[in-house]
Amino acid sequence: MKFCPSCAHPVALKIPDGDHLPRYVCTACATIHYQNPRVVVGCVPEHEGKILLCRRAIEPRRGFWTLPAGFMENGETMQGGAARESMEEALARVEIGSLVAIVHVLHAHQVHVVFRAKLLNLDFGPGPESLEVALFDEQDIPWNEMAFRSVDFALKRFLEDRRAHRSELHFHDID
Amino acid sequence: MKFCPSCAHPVALKIPDGDHLPRYVCTACATIHYQNPRVVVGCVPEHEGKILLCRRAIEPRRGFWTLPAGFMENGETMQGGAARESMEEALARVEIGSLVAIVHVLHAHQVHVVFRAKLLNLDFGPGPESLEVALFDEQDIPWNEMAFRSVDFALKRFLEDRRAHRSELHFHDID
Repeated sequence: MKFCPSCAHPVALKIPDGDHLPRYVCTACATIHYQNPRVVVGCVPEHEGKILLCRRAIEPRRGFWTLPAGFMENGETMQGGAARESMEEALARVEIGSLVAIVHVLHAHQVHVVFRAKLLNLDFGPGPESLEVALFDEQDIPWNEMAFRSVDFALKRFLEDRRAHRSELHFHDID
Repeated sequence: MKFCPSCAHPVALKIPDGDHLPRYVCTACATIHYQNPRVVVGCVPEHEGKILLCRRAIEPRRGFWTLPAGFMENGETMQGGAARESMEEALARVEIGSLVAIVHVLHAHQVHVVFRAKLLNLDFGPGPESLEVALFDEQDIPWNEMAFRSVDFALKRFLEDRRAHRSELHFHDID
């Protein structure tokens, strides 16, 4: 941020009175522009034991596999966002279940939130951001071609929990 | 947002190619400025069965009671943010436990995330944003003077779960 989104004058990084962190503050209108982590919502769509994965058509990590996930939008729930991303990236209708993972991606200022999900039918396919969408048996998951560490974490915990017949929520921090 | 934070030219609300929602797009440099929900993190600090609450010294809802909570910062975890807010608002050291509630406050573009917590000692008191901080027995909680519906929801679920000797995660949407 270089300029004030309210009045177009330059901003300066400084610690406002009573605050403890540097913020972008407008040098003209004094508005403080806070910056906060963004939430990425996704899910592990499951069908008869198989897991749906998407091969990314866009950067970052084009060509690598991921779970359907993306930035949460204003006005939606986390579950709504995860279902929307499944539709956008994999043209897949899902029923969102319990939380499996919350991963703090500290350097990226993101929180990745991943739910368990049921794939509701087999009418899926690549959306504009995917090269390919496929169902994988656990032993065929392309672990060496995973796009993101948060996805790797969530998928491993999902599979461990499934084997143990439990549904836990797992936290993880990536820096 | 009226002006581009990158180049200070006016922005316009429009749906970018390949997108499905209106975004602020710079009329000069074409940068898309996404706006996403902010995460508010808080906790239910407990000590020998009593609950720590803060009476707000600031708007909105000055004079009403709340759990220690505030906006999650870049570079911290949700648990770290909840502990930080306890220190800032109640000068209270807490040990953060499991999640009790995630409340989507849809109209405010916020997600309120509330953890169980243990108050580590009795050295607490009002921080600059609190008029008063106190420990309440369950029967003395000032339900008619609660600041926010999300706090009311989280606290009620916390108490129900405690009575039932369970620790569940509860979702709720407010619109």
